[in-house]
Amino acid sequence: MIKGGYTGKILRINLSNLTTKEEPVPEALVKNYLGGAGFAIKYLYDELKPRVPALSRENKLIFAVGPLTATGASCASRMAVAAKSPLTGAMGMALAGGQFPAEMKMTGYDMIIIEGKAEKPIYVSIIDGEVSFHSAVKLMGMMTTDTQLFIKEELGDWNYRIACVGPAGEKQVPMACIVNERRAAGRKGLGAVMGSKNLKAIAVRGTRKPAVADAEAFKKARAAMLKNMKESPVLYSQFSKTGTPMVVDAMTEMGIYSIKNWSATGEINMVPGLGKAAQDTMIITRNPCYDCPVGCSQVKLVTSGPYAGYLSEGPEFETTYSLGSAVGVDYLPAVIAGDRLCDEYGIDTISAGVSIAWAMELYEKGILTKKDTDGIDLKFGNHAAMIEMLRKIAYQEGLGALLGQGTKKAAAKIGKGSDAFAMQVKGLEMPAYDIRGAKAHGLNYATSYTGADHNRGYAFQEIFDIPIPEKVDRNAIKGKGKLTKWNQDIRAVTCDCAPMCAFLLDMAVPAVACQNTADLVNAVAGTEFTSGEIEKIGERLNNVARLFNIREGFTRKDDSFPKRILTEPIKQGASKGQLISRADLDTMLDEYYAERGWDKNGNPTTAKLKELAIKRD
Amino acid sequence: MIKGGYTGKILRINLSNLTTKEEPVPEALVKNYLGGAGFAIKYLYDELKPRVPALSRENKLIFAVGPLTATGASCASRMAVAAKSPLTGAMGMALAGGQFPAEMKMTGYDMIIIEGKAEKPIYVSIIDGEVSFHSAVKLMGMMTTDTQLFIKEELGDWNYRIACVGPAGEKQVPMACIVNERRAAGRKGLGAVMGSKNLKAIAVRGTRKPAVADAEAFKKARAAMLKNMKESPVLYSQFSKTGTPMVVDAMTEMGIYSIKNWSATGEINMVPGLGKAAQDTMIITRNPCYDCPVGCSQVKLVTSGPYAGYLSEGPEFETTYSLGSAVGVDYLPAVIAGDRLCDEYGIDTISAGVSIAWAMELYEKGILTKKDTDGIDLKFGNHAAMIEMLRKIAYQEGLGALLGQGTKKAAAKIGKGSDAFAMQVKGLEMPAYDIRGAKAHGLNYATSYTGADHNRGYAFQEIFDIPIPEKVDRNAIKGKGKLTKWNQDIRAVTCDCAPMCAFLLDMAVPAVACQNTADLVNAVAGTEFTSGEIEKIGERLNNVARLFNIREGFTRKDDSFPKRILTEPIKQGASKGQLISRADLDTMLDEYYAERGWDKNGNPTTAKLKELAIKRD
Repeated sequence: MIKGGYTGKILRINLSNLTTKEEPVPEALVKNYLGGAGFAIKYLYDELKPRVPALSRENKLIFAVGPLTATGASCASRMAVAAKSPLTGAMGMALAGGQFPAEMKMTGYDMIIIEGKAEKPIYVSIIDGEVSFHSAVKLMGMMTTDTQLFIKEELGDWNYRIACVGPAGEKQVPMACIVNERRAAGRKGLGAVMGSKNLKAIAVRGTRKPAVADAEAFKKARAAMLKNMKESPVLYSQFSKTGTPMVVDAMTEMGIYSIKNWSATGEINMVPGLGKAAQDTMIITRNPCYDCPVGCSQVKLVTSGPYAGYLSEGPEFETTYSLGSAVGVDYLPAVIAGDRLCDEYGIDTISAGVSIAWAMELYEKGILTKKDTDGIDLKFGNHAAMIEMLRKIAYQEGLGALLGQGTKKAAAKIGKGSDAFAMQVKGLEMPAYDIRGAKAHGLNYATSYTGADHNRGYAFQEIFDIPIPEKVDRNAIKGKGKLTKWNQDIRAVTCDCAPMCAFLLDMAVPAVACQNTADLVNAVAGTEFTSGEIEKIGERLNNVARLFNIREGFTRKDDSFPKRILTEPIKQGASKGQLISRADLDTMLDEYYAERGWDKNGNPTTAKLKELAIKRD
Repeated sequence: MIKGGYTGKILRINLSNLTTKEEPVPEALVKNYLGGAGFAIKYLYDELKPRVPALSRENKLIFAVGPLTATGASCASRMAVAAKSPLTGAMGMALAGGQFPAEMKMTGYDMIIIEGKAEKPIYVSIIDGEVSFHSAVKLMGMMTTDTQLFIKEELGDWNYRIACVGPAGEKQVPMACIVNERRAAGRKGLGAVMGSKNLKAIAVRGTRKPAVADAEAFKKARAAMLKNMKESPVLYSQFSKTGTPMVVDAMTEMGIYSIKNWSATGEINMVPGLGKAAQDTMIITRNPCYDCPVGCSQVKLVTSGPYAGYLSEGPEFETTYSLGSAVGVDYLPAVIAGDRLCDEYGIDTISAGVSIAWAMELYEKGILTKKDTDGIDLKFGNHAAMIEMLRKIAYQEGLGALLGQGTKKAAAKIGKGSDAFAMQVKGLEMPAYDIRGAKAHGLNYATSYTGADHNRGYAFQEIFDIPIPEKVDRNAIKGKGKLTKWNQDIRAVTCDCAPMCAFLLDMAVPAVACQNTADLVNAVAGTEFTSGEIEKIGERLNNVARLFNIREGFTRKDDSFPKRILTEPIKQGASKGQLISRADLDTMLDEYYAERGWDKNGNPTTAKLKELAIKRD
């Protein structure tokens, strides 16, 4: 059935005994899970024993690309990285772009499964199917850029692409990320899982460009997508010029750009420091992912002042929030410096920044004092303190050791009502959008299998007022269950499995995402997916991930929000007065579960599982 | 006559009109100047108009490798970089190792002459003789590591080797350096010359390995050198393990490791923080130059504390002084951080550190106050202040703008007797060795054509008690003129022209350096140099450089020391009481000039020039 697109091979690497095994990609896997996150989550559900500790050798770390990667379908150099998350205890899955995913595909593998734990620190190189193990003892403690440079030098070919952890991953900080080039599989602590396996890096170099089954059909499907991209009112005109920070101003105007740990959402005085105009002045160039004509990736450089010399790809919209508005810092050079340092240490900018923001609020409330902060004046707006706390998180020093565990666990240790201000769901810190003024976006935070994750069911309808599949009122409660299911399923399959860059879904093909994916995949792989079958794959993924979480002990009560969201209305601005009450949340959850064919407790029904041909563990 | 070794080609790049020209390497040039610094200095003497401003388009910047580079002769990936120095106004020449020199040779050029000035910032790429110009507008302000990464990415082949300037070079800071990989042509402000030409970087990639004229003779000569290296009592046993910092302890014991801007030389309390034991604990790996079996290059990494994550190649012995003992800092992590930051900003660690040390002494003496330092408590030992001042030098902020000019010019502006503490000769800041207790080393500082430069006539006889060509008393005055001439001539030809790593001269082949060079060069190039002719080339180089400096206005009075050396004895330790009085200096200069065949004013005599076949301009 499969004639192209896929390499057809899975690489299994056992670090405990330094062996490797190749396995074929089962046709049923392609049919039911398409690729990327679908592959990874299905394998984790099947292969992980229930309740294995996330940082034990029993956890597995999976890298998976999709059928479109490196085929000439634009914007498909994306990989899903997945494991049980040490931050949340739930399914941990994050995507990264850049060059590594395409290069990995060209080594000849659709998926790499890392098992066990190396006795001593190592890194793995893969060149066209040839796997080698190398000591990484000398790389221990190295920042991620230096790590990549030293490995390239040692391998004698600088054209390798490398995914690695920084000091934080080595130290198994639960918010550690995995960095490739200037990109990251950022959230859910996958870097800590990699570190727990004593795996410092994976280096890939490949020349095996996958075949395309039907060149004519592919040309047509590709042209259709490029046309949709060209016709987008924002993709080239704004997004390719400013990147994700283009929406800072709009979110501020809508009153849902979260400020000072969500205590001051609606304030508008940060726009001069963090908004589009400020961002644009610091852009020096782009650094696009492999085969991307848009190039949203803006590189910014600080050329004067205390952070002179710091360069980062980004900061993205989310980092502008977490290291900017969330911590009350409206000085972009500090955000750029913090962004770069997070990439170098290998920690997630969102979880790190939001944890610091939370600590700042506790400090201002007197719950934390200078005794707890090693003398740091941890007030909102103190950017030097923010920079210093990032280092403390990465190296697990003082209060940083606590914050690195994430706000949920840290709040449990600090007590004193601090959990009310811990902006997280299932232990994952919340992204920028203040969901009190964007209810479907909120319902997605509550129900995503990874926790408060904007990437799993982004409600572009609410954020950008796009009437697809229909017009919505962002503050309405009714209809948000149905909408969230649709958003989550479409996104899961098109962005996380195919894979296709999420921004195309939001800005270019929202109405035809599944058809677009079906056309492209069928052309490259010779498959015969219908648009409906593609959407079903997304639904299947969300159900399997739900089953994984249920097995780990998650229930309806975990599909919730911190107290602030439920009880404290936004105090000012265009969304003033908004919150999501307990009753509103329950209404939305009931509708969502019903739409999903799940029972009142959020358990997939037997009928639904049968419909999706999922065998419950 | 020439059958190998040399590429035989000179590349001339005119940045004003973006044209290039190839010229043959004249046989007479080979015969009289061998290569490297010899080539570069001869061309600068012939081609620069007298008294051109160093930062004008009339200055030329020359990169030159030698006949041994990339031939299989170990430790010869060295290049001379030369121009009129903006720091001293004299001949500016510095060498760098690493990979770039070998790669440059393999592009097919022995020498690259950069002329004029580009209208807008550009970089140049050269691959196997093909030269291209690229806009560097987007690279402006980038640190040197990021610069190298972005250029590799843009050129689509990460295997390019790149020499570039950082922000300091762009800003024409007179102590800016040129960085390739983790190496630098560090001293005399050559980075400012590159910046003044709007040239951000040169990227080279080559496959043209030079021919070897006589394989059998080469094998024999190479084996002889490797045998000498193997038999060295220190080269592999100590030097390859610790690198240059291996001598921190010994110099401290001898009482000539300069401390706190030379005001406290002889103190021994810094050894715990900066000595070999401390250095060794932070080594993580080596980063050898191309084709070097020794690998003195130690990479150090800070893994905890305020500078966690900083990695540098080094800090070398000299940087341990300039950013350590000279500024009273005995905390190695701060030295490592400062070393990396200097490399990233692109500033010379010695001149930067010694300038800060000088400012610290002025601050402690009350000549500078917090008003001058922007509130920084610029006391000896304040490593955070040192780090902050490096940034200010690179970005020309506040006091940094003054210090970046070097201590000589800064003292002229500050006045108040500050010049007495400005540790420089001809405007070049002094290296680590307190010459009050090492007189030939001192005479070399006084007479080197580049200023206070340990690399032009290193008196290993005094420093390591090596009796070659004969045993010396380091505090004796008599005989130092003759010794200094010998050291300068041997070093000029073997290290700066052939080129061969200076550490081999000091530790492996001091007794046979010229014969070793003659044997290797004759084998690779088919030439018939005698050992004596090789030595004569070194002498010729030093004479031409002297003529250059005389033409620029330098006289005997510039062959001198700051007041501290002449009047203030070392106060403590094993060299207590030592100084070099004005009378002692005159005695040594008279002997040195006589040995050189120069008149009392330090002017080469007509007879000497005739003997060396030098045509005076």
